[in-house]
Amino acid sequence: MSSKALDYENLNENVKKCQYAVRGELYLRASELQKEGKKIIFTNVGNPHALGQKPLTFPRQVIALCQAPFLLDDPNVGLIFPADAIARAKQFLGMTSGGLGAYSDSRGIPGVRKEVAEFIERRDGYPSDPELIFLTDGASKGVMQILNSIIRGPSDGILVPVPQYPLYSASIQLLGGSLVPYYLEETANWGLDINDLRQSVAKARYTGITVRAMVIINPGNPTGQCLSVANLKQIIQFCHQENLVLLGDEVYQQNIYQDERPFISARKVLLDMGLPLSKEVQLVSFHTVSKGYWGECGQRGGYFEMTNIPPKAVEEIYKVASISLSPNVPGQIFMGLMVNPPKPGDISYDQYARESKGILESLRRRAHMMTDGFNSCRNVVCNFTEGAMYSFPQIRLPPRAIETANKLGKAADVFYCLRLLEATGISTVPGSGFGQKEGVFHLRTTILPAEEDMPAIMESFKKFNDEFMEKYEDHKGYSRM
Amino acid sequence: MSSKALDYENLNENVKKCQYAVRGELYLRASELQKEGKKIIFTNVGNPHALGQKPLTFPRQVIALCQAPFLLDDPNVGLIFPADAIARAKQFLGMTSGGLGAYSDSRGIPGVRKEVAEFIERRDGYPSDPELIFLTDGASKGVMQILNSIIRGPSDGILVPVPQYPLYSASIQLLGGSLVPYYLEETANWGLDINDLRQSVAKARYTGITVRAMVIINPGNPTGQCLSVANLKQIIQFCHQENLVLLGDEVYQQNIYQDERPFISARKVLLDMGLPLSKEVQLVSFHTVSKGYWGECGQRGGYFEMTNIPPKAVEEIYKVASISLSPNVPGQIFMGLMVNPPKPGDISYDQYARESKGILESLRRRAHMMTDGFNSCRNVVCNFTEGAMYSFPQIRLPPRAIETANKLGKAADVFYCLRLLEATGISTVPGSGFGQKEGVFHLRTTILPAEEDMPAIMESFKKFNDEFMEKYEDHKGYSRM
Repeated sequence: MSSKALDYENLNENVKKCQYAVRGELYLRASELQKEGKKIIFTNVGNPHALGQKPLTFPRQVIALCQAPFLLDDPNVGLIFPADAIARAKQFLGMTSGGLGAYSDSRGIPGVRKEVAEFIERRDGYPSDPELIFLTDGASKGVMQILNSIIRGPSDGILVPVPQYPLYSASIQLLGGSLVPYYLEETANWGLDINDLRQSVAKARYTGITVRAMVIINPGNPTGQCLSVANLKQIIQFCHQENLVLLGDEVYQQNIYQDERPFISARKVLLDMGLPLSKEVQLVSFHTVSKGYWGECGQRGGYFEMTNIPPKAVEEIYKVASISLSPNVPGQIFMGLMVNPPKPGDISYDQYARESKGILESLRRRAHMMTDGFNSCRNVVCNFTEGAMYSFPQIRLPPRAIETANKLGKAADVFYCLRLLEATGISTVPGSGFGQKEGVFHLRTTILPAEEDMPAIMESFKKFNDEFMEKYEDHKGYSRM
Repeated sequence: MSSKALDYENLNENVKKCQYAVRGELYLRASELQKEGKKIIFTNVGNPHALGQKPLTFPRQVIALCQAPFLLDDPNVGLIFPADAIARAKQFLGMTSGGLGAYSDSRGIPGVRKEVAEFIERRDGYPSDPELIFLTDGASKGVMQILNSIIRGPSDGILVPVPQYPLYSASIQLLGGSLVPYYLEETANWGLDINDLRQSVAKARYTGITVRAMVIINPGNPTGQCLSVANLKQIIQFCHQENLVLLGDEVYQQNIYQDERPFISARKVLLDMGLPLSKEVQLVSFHTVSKGYWGECGQRGGYFEMTNIPPKAVEEIYKVASISLSPNVPGQIFMGLMVNPPKPGDISYDQYARESKGILESLRRRAHMMTDGFNSCRNVVCNFTEGAMYSFPQIRLPPRAIETANKLGKAADVFYCLRLLEATGISTVPGSGFGQKEGVFHLRTTILPAEEDMPAIMESFKKFNDEFMEKYEDHKGYSRM
């Protein structure tokens, strides 16, 4: 029997090559253990509701009414829905032709794109054009679409931070391009060294790669740092000099857990820099309803905004978006709600503000609990999570642990994380899934387990880790490097 | 100033090459006219709710409750929601971990995939494995993912019917593969001639193309025909002989407007054929909540089911799905509801059955009204819409109309459709967007305008068409070919 088109050996090589560790070996093993009845704490993916975070009430009321517009005529609707949710639902339905069951324009509902533009203007102090904002099924889909427009073949390179969120490595592999890594410096709180960036580009060029775009993730995933204005300026200067499109993954812009470095968008910094850069540097910025304090991952709502992309290219991006007709409409409504939430004086404002604040403050406390917890463990050091949703501790594995892993044919961090999973049910992602310097090991967890569970989780982690270290350390006295 | 990565001239050539006529020149012009205040009848895309079709009540009640789970604890909930909708919402929420705000497994919620498998088993009489069913953001996303797995480069060919739904041509172009056309025979009610298929494959091979898969659209889009069992058997035999994956686009399986040829799935025919074919022919079948009598396009819910695809390949497809984390969860719930709707005896059954029947019977009447309307027009001939949602009349354009179009640099059918749009507001898609034989012209409309509007629309069409023909016909006496 001859082999067939959908047999493994005949698949598109780019499909086979790409790796996505967030749902890789560790996740699959965790799912198996869960099926066998083991209690698993899924901290592998930033999925707040799966770990018990409750949805914000107001947006869910509005979307429920949009889904069931016949309720708007029900005389009892006021008994279970507040008047401002009813008004907002009517407003959204008025923006669509056909409600949530109709495809929208492939770029998204014009009225929602206008709300996004107004949000961006309030945030940055510069007007934004709704025609340059495309709504998407979550930010990932937007990133993939833009990379697809840029990447022409294996000699097109995309600068990606290491450690990075593996959406980038996976998408670049899938699209047949080349990932050009630049390293974030762990000892400088995961800061970006512009000289390292230059070296990365030079090295890539030497091997025949044309670097065409640069990805920044701010706040960082998995590294949690917030970029300073000075750093962002350097990056934009660099993109200008090197003629790179800047791709600003800013999906964690609402998740900030310190006050020294608030979130500042790449777009604001670019426009503040003035001419000629403000008119010349191409920038695409990404956002989502999945993160922030909303955490509405399952709804798949996102957008990208284009700056300095010429109309003819925007048209091509529109054309490609139109092949899959439209992003899901409920997700678009969520985006409209996120960028234009209840205001002081609205009936639902107090509840909305209380719920949002509750989640955000708890995330901030959890960021501290987790970092402190990791730093209390033997051979573990961890930068503070300034923003985003992750902790990325370095695990200093004893040589005997590394040897044992090698014998089992596993990367040392994978070995460690699998042992952690089996011992405690904590499902993390090994640092190798994000990239790390040779011989240095990490893991990524989210900071999302329920606050009340956090002490027990960190204790369980510490117990496992310290016993693991005890077991594998050279008893003649292995010390921190 | 040097040109930049996201300037038109530097974009990925496959992005620039691909065409998607359903939202192409005609749609863009129609959108412009709408902005200027003209009333447009959008029949360019199968988008029933945009043309006034009301959503079915029960699924919208269930999804509203799933979106607002706090309503389930509200003492007044029973005043506006029936008990079976409440029970079903609780059941769905029990299938998720974290409700609609959490990413699901990248293949979709296991409980919903089980409901899909049970639906397929009831439909076909053969068990179906939920592990081989992946939920998607609409069928288009599933098609693109499978084509991405198959296509390795320009010498990989995909057999596509002509006329075809341009999702296929666009996706194949975007993925850098080759479309190998096979022609449906208009005079044989858009039937498929297996000899023509053989010729298409032979011709492609001669030019160095390896044909790897064959697409069928059943019921047909834009052509509306239902494939007979005999035809499906020939196709499956052919795929077996030629070692092709069969891609069965069956999104219109509920849209049948005659009784002689009910829908029969490719999977049922394959499994009925027995060994060795039933174990050897690779098949991927696609379905959606956007069509049928649901028409829930904006929700973006779909699935694909794989038959005879080995586990290692399924794993790769899973891995790629996981890069964008999960299909939107509300769309998954809609799919669960569509494949497992209220049953006789349930509180909501009567209303559900009445609404469904009302839509389906009206579609059947509209299919007749439209075909009859077209056939009453000068130089227009149209096969009956046996299924799906489209009418695809042939427009026999007089030579002077073709000359005029040529002078304007337009394809003749584009010219005709633009004139139709300007004169009547009816937004159609020229046949050239789907492919047609050289020198033959068509347009596609949906049969979706509201039934009460249909007579006026067809009258307006007839008036435009007959005047157009009058104007461009050779007055010495141009006759039907």
